[in-house]
This record gives sequence, C-alpha cells and structure tokens, in this order.
Amino acid sequence: MTAPIKENLILAMDLGGTKFVAALVSSTGGIVSRQYKLTLADEGPEAVIRRMLETIDDLTGNTGLTSSSLSSIAIAAAGAIDSARGIVTASPNLPGWRDVPLKDIVEKATGIRTVVLNDASAAALGEHAYGAGRGVNNLIYITVSTGIGGGIIINGKLYGGACGSAGEIGHTTIDINGLRCTCGNIGCLETLASGKAVAREAQRLISSGAKTCILELAEGELQNVTAQTVSAAAQRGDAVAKAIIAKAAGYLGVGLVNLINIFNPEMIVVGGGMSKMGDSLLDGARKVVAERAFQLPAQAVRIVPSQLGDNAGILGAVAFASSP
Amino acid sequence: MTAPIKENLILAMDLGGTKFVAALVSSTGGIVSRQYKLTLADEGPEAVIRRMLETIDDLTGNTGLTSSSLSSIAIAAAGAIDSARGIVTASPNLPGWRDVPLKDIVEKATGIRTVVLNDASAAALGEHAYGAGRGVNNLIYITVSTGIGGGIIINGKLYGGACGSAGEIGHTTIDINGLRCTCGNIGCLETLASGKAVAREAQRLISSGAKTCILELAEGELQNVTAQTVSAAAQRGDAVAKAIIAKAAGYLGVGLVNLINIFNPEMIVVGGGMSKMGDSLLDGARKVVAERAFQLPAQAVRIVPSQLGDNAGILGAVAFASSP
Repeated sequence: MTAPIKENLILAMDLGGTKFVAALVSSTGGIVSRQYKLTLADEGPEAVIRRMLETIDDLTGNTGLTSSSLSSIAIAAAGAIDSARGIVTASPNLPGWRDVPLKDIVEKATGIRTVVLNDASAAALGEHAYGAGRGVNNLIYITVSTGIGGGIIINGKLYGGACGSAGEIGHTTIDINGLRCTCGNIGCLETLASGKAVAREAQRLISSGAKTCILELAEGELQNVTAQTVSAAAQRGDAVAKAIIAKAAGYLGVGLVNLINIFNPEMIVVGGGMSKMGDSLLDGARKVVAERAFQLPAQAVRIVPSQLGDNAGILGAVAFASSP
Repeated sequence: MTAPIKENLILAMDLGGTKFVAALVSSTGGIVSRQYKLTLADEGPEAVIRRMLETIDDLTGNTGLTSSSLSSIAIAAAGAIDSARGIVTASPNLPGWRDVPLKDIVEKATGIRTVVLNDASAAALGEHAYGAGRGVNNLIYITVSTGIGGGIIINGKLYGGACGSAGEIGHTTIDINGLRCTCGNIGCLETLASGKAVAREAQRLISSGAKTCILELAEGELQNVTAQTVSAAAQRGDAVAKAIIAKAAGYLGVGLVNLINIFNPEMIVVGGGMSKMGDSLLDGARKVVAERAFQLPAQAVRIVPSQLGDNAGILGAVAFASSP
C-alpha cells in the first residue's frame, strides 16, 4: 500500500466529442495502460462523466491499483475551459456542457486532485514536453481536424492569456468576405482548411458532377464523404481529391503565415486528423509560407508534423498536472 | 563631473521614415528635454546616422551635459531589427538600410552603451511601463498609422519570438482574395485598415465622382489626400469621409478579433496617427469585436487608445534600456 508507484502515476484523459481516451501515465510520459471509449456526447454531461469515472475505476483496477494510488487526474477536454477553476464553460462538440465544474465533480467522486485544460492546449504541452517540440522554447501547436484549434508555448510555458482561452487559431478571419463560421465569426481559417471544409468542398464538387472516385469510397452516400475519404481518393491518384487537398493546404499556409508574422516562432507543430496526410498537406502550406511570410521568421521556423499523434492530449495533460 | 544625473539619464530616439524624435529621459520615464528633426531618409543611412549623432551632441550640450554623462542610448527604429545584435536588417521606410549595425556605429562614435529595437515593440513597452498598460501583464499594442505594426507584452515582458521580429500584426491576411501588400503577402490588415488604405479609398471615391469635401481640404490635389484629410472632412460631417473611416474601423475590428481569439489579452492599446481619430475609429472596431470574437476573451479585453501618443516609442526604448 505504500508503493512508490503512487507518486509517479497520473490518470490522463482526452475528452473529445466522439471518443475519449484514458491512460495511466508516469510523470515522465511513459504510458502504462491506455483505453478508449465512445463519448456518446448526446447523452449529456452526467452520463459522460459517469462513463469517465467508470473508466478510471476500470483502468486502475486492471493495473492492480486502487483509484487512491494515483497522484492526480488530468483531463484535456474539447471546448472553452476555465482552467484555473477546472470548469468546462462551453463546448460545441459536447452538447449540454455549460459551466460544468468537471474538476470538482471528479475530485469529489475520487478524492484525487484533478486538473482540467483545453485539449489543444494540452496537445501543445504534450508535443513540447515529450514530442516534436522538446527543447523548443517558443512553439505553436495547431490541430487540423474536423475543426482547427491551437496551443501556444512561450518561454517554455503554456500561454493561456487572461482567462485561459488563448490559442483559437482556427477562429481567425482569413477571408473577410467568406462564410459564416459556427463560432459566429466570418471567413475563419476553420471554414477553409479544416476536415469539415475539405468534406464540404468534396460534396460540392461531386454534386456539380466532378469526375472523382471519392463518392465510391464513401459507399455512394454523399453525407458519408469525409476528409478521410478525400485523402484515400488522393492516395489513389484521384485528381479532384488531390486538388481539394492542395487548396486546403494553401489555406492552411495562409494561417501559418499569419502565425509566423505575429509570433516568429521557432516551430509550428501540425497535429490532428488532417496532419496524417503528411507532406501532401504540409508541403503545400510550407510553399505559401516561403512565398508570403517575412523572410527572417519564415527562415527561422520549422513546420513539422505532430510526433505524438493521438497521445498528444493525454501526455500534455500529464505535463500540465506535473508542472509546479 | 560625478553628477548622479549620469546614472539616471538615457538618451532615447525614435527613428521613423519621416522624422526622428530624440529626448533625454530619466530611467523613471520623465522627459527632461525633447526635440525632433526630419529624417531625410532619402539621403541614406550614413547621412541619417550623422544627423542622429549631431542631435545627441545638441541635446546633451543644451542640457549642460557631455555625451559621456549618459548611462545609455536607446533607439527605437522603424523596420526589421535584430535587437540582440542591434542591427537594422531592413526597413521599408528607410531606403538603403540593409544590415546596418546601428548599435556598433553609435557606440563607437559616442562610447556609450546603445540598444536598438523595433519602434512598435518599443511603443508596446512604453505603454506597458508608463502608459495605458501599466500593471497589465498581457497586452497587445497596435499602431495604426501609414502602415500597421504591433508589439506583444506577455507576462509583463516584450515577446520578440525566435529572432525578435514578432508582432507584425499589420501583415496578417484577413482578405485572402485581396490586394497584394508591399510586404509581398496578400490581403494584409495593412492594405485595408491603415492610413495608406484610407487615403487610397478616398482617392478612389473622389476619382469616381463621390460628393465630398475631402479634395477641397487637400487643396484640390488628389495626391495630397491623406488619412488626416479624410479625418478632417469627417469632423466637418462629410458623409463620404465618415463612411471611409467606418469601413476602416470595421477592418481594424476584424484584425482585433483575430488578436483576441489568439491571445486572449487583457488589453489592446491602439496607437499611431489613425488612433487620433479616437472613438470614431475605436467604437467601430469594438462593435465588430462584440459581434464576432469569442465571448469570454471579448468580455475580458479592454480596447483603449494610446496614452503616450508620440512619446510611446522613446519611453519604450528607455524601458528597454533599463530592463535587466
């Protein structure tokens, strides 16, 4: 019962709109055990939190630990998080989550110190502590997935701003005459370069009769077309799919130019589902950076893919819980 | 000759494309003496630097000091500055300035420790140390003048990024289908919300026959129309002028939304010539922020005019020279 493991293990969770990942992690970033479950977000916060608590019991039980053997619980969650108080103030992908005191609820149920932070902030911390950004003092993490989010590391620390909501890179206007974004703003980067945008553009082109195998890969159903389908078609050499990705890469490049001219960062780490396209996405973005950003910061920055992939969030949550 | 004044006085300069300001300032920000001269930038770096050195002699002489009575010389300069080495690497408004080792030249000529930094960075530091941003930990300074520049204060310190070039807020794309900017990028905030943009829009409207008194205020010469002329016309109630300013204010608002969603700053200080329009500019920008930025950071930020006006640069240079 006095196992030294107690001081080293953190239970980390990455709560997304579709699934959540939970893992037992050492304070040096070693993943001891990991599982994921569907969030089933439509069932609302109470049901989701109950499932999260069950998973904590499962994970600790499977490893022969009790929940009291954990030094802390660290939760990265999608949405606007008041990190100082551990409250999920709002989350577009978690219906019904409005000012949910997640930290207090989990602490009360488990008796274990709990921290909560935004998932993209966590991923930034994760890449900085254990991934592509080790030893890099000033870096921007951008996740290009269904939506686009980001996290900012300045002087080796997560920069949260006045209320911890900094880093909403996806919700910056790059097309003043563009579409209205789900956030209420106009022409956001997310409306042009996200997975959602890629799927929408593919659906539009298919509807207007473009010759492509995308629809076939989506089993003939237009609403099944996703960024993944487009990526798969591109890998087969489909010209329409390749053009859609090239266009999104160009828009992403514009977003990166803005970040580079503002931050002059040492590194930009690109994560999220779309980053799995690798250089077919990143090279297009790098080209725009070389053409348009100021020369000094453009030459200084390295634009690299995430090293931690789906584990960036949980490992960043661990780094957050372990920081003084 | 052992006057204690020696340890407290800094000679500060703000070198712009049109004029330069020089002042003797105490380390607590008190301006003892101040003068300005035309830069006559077209004469090239050597002539400009000679004029700067003469001004140093003038100012110290007039105050009964010798140049050796100064603790340091602090120069805020327009352009891309390598602040660590005190080099003006390039400057759109100072023709011929390419990798000019200004720090070394001035130190050699005067024997006094010299520091050099970007003018917008200096203004940010100035407002933070002595102006609108006293006691504010995270603030963005944006100067809206002929061009648009900026400086970033994070955790109470100037954030320079990897090479000290951070803060180029004016050169972020907000209109992906817009005009090419002088910097090479497309649809920069500067192409839409700067003094230059306001003058260009007024000239365009006058050329297409708009009914306005702007041309009259520019003595009938289209090329004499500036943002100041437009502002003067607006103050007389000219509808065209008011519409031009409202449009620029809206664009500025879009730029501020981007900064607010990225930085979640406590404060944005708006300086530069255009900020002298006061609330007729700022209220339009604030309205866009209220409509489009995320609610949490939009409610947290104060958008205020510069308090130091034309002295922000020299006072910021003093703060920079005085920092450890």
